[in-house]
Amino acid sequence: MRVRNRPGAKEKIIAHDKFIAEDGRQFKGKWSSYFDTNQPLYIEVGTGKGQFIHKMAVEYPEVNFLGIEQQASVVSIALDKLIEKPLPNLRLLHADGADMLDIFDVGEVDRIFLNFSDPWPKKRHIKRRLTAPSFLEKYFTILTKNGKIEQKTDNTGLFEYSLASFSQNLFLIEEVRVDLHDDSERSAAEITTEYEDKFRNRNKQIHKVIVRKNNG
Amino acid sequence: MRVRNRPGAKEKIIAHDKFIAEDGRQFKGKWSSYFDTNQPLYIEVGTGKGQFIHKMAVEYPEVNFLGIEQQASVVSIALDKLIEKPLPNLRLLHADGADMLDIFDVGEVDRIFLNFSDPWPKKRHIKRRLTAPSFLEKYFTILTKNGKIEQKTDNTGLFEYSLASFSQNLFLIEEVRVDLHDDSERSAAEITTEYEDKFRNRNKQIHKVIVRKNNG
Repeated sequence: MRVRNRPGAKEKIIAHDKFIAEDGRQFKGKWSSYFDTNQPLYIEVGTGKGQFIHKMAVEYPEVNFLGIEQQASVVSIALDKLIEKPLPNLRLLHADGADMLDIFDVGEVDRIFLNFSDPWPKKRHIKRRLTAPSFLEKYFTILTKNGKIEQKTDNTGLFEYSLASFSQNLFLIEEVRVDLHDDSERSAAEITTEYEDKFRNRNKQIHKVIVRKNNG
Repeated sequence: MRVRNRPGAKEKIIAHDKFIAEDGRQFKGKWSSYFDTNQPLYIEVGTGKGQFIHKMAVEYPEVNFLGIEQQASVVSIALDKLIEKPLPNLRLLHADGADMLDIFDVGEVDRIFLNFSDPWPKKRHIKRRLTAPSFLEKYFTILTKNGKIEQKTDNTGLFEYSLASFSQNLFLIEEVRVDLHDDSERSAAEITTEYEDKFRNRNKQIHKVIVRKNNG
């Protein structure tokens, strides 16, 4: 996601370390201490402006949510939302999701959300896709035994790639939706990202897949 | 597939036992003897009027193709095509694909095609879908170690179900296409069924998935 550079974003992040962590490594193995309650941990890799994770945290108070975003200007928008409406079960992390093995202990995460990740369509960039085998190995490590990943994307190429990659690398496909918003009742129940709202209004298909760890 | 009852279909099948087998069990373990050449065996379960398998047999002379169809009236149409244009590597079988363990020996089949199978959309009929676990176990048994299944369907519910079912039951997803005919070049290279041509012309998405055995 690209947004205009926000002057003072970095300073704001540092000033609000109750809501947003700048160094995730300090919480490795003890993320529950950063929240009010010790309960399951769901993370979003690439949380953007935070609409999805904020709504999820409201909807599921029995879960701790951590939104990870690399770009200071972007995550500072998510931070503004959290400052305005503090939630005991929502925290942010200003970090690169690729460093997750330094940030989370083995089996520390219950669910991972990958929403509208960069599709990296060119063949030479395949390794950068967040569902490339090297990432799936990391997710497998940090997830609990019954851990799941939920991915949403409007990019059909990324979706097709991800289905094969999950299946071939440590995960079992649990549920697939080719066109998430083709059913108005189910669509209304879906918590969306800013990006998703935009593309949905253009009648673009939103794809979704839920996978679980293949422990066997 | 429903077609009008063709009087004399059954008699025609029996009269042309060089092209179409009425009792598949007699060839179990020795299907190559029914063809001119001993070469890989690809089967289509529910071959319908036979356009797909006939074109495949022309395109790939180095493979033996067997089209299986349960309905006499339907398969007699495929038989007419074969009588008109005999091919050394194409044979038909008038049988219920569900009986495949009586028809094929362990590891006798190299590839299985499931084209536009009945979607059985109601929950109580899920077990009848050709990608239900009980069928996948049979496919796994009759396929060679490197055996594959290729499925095409216009039914999104069946496609979504199949992806999860394959992944959870003995197969790895190798390739997925959400909209097979969205790329004119690749679309032109695709060998289609009668049904596929009809729905493609109505701009309906055709889904495709290729899976391989998970040998484990």
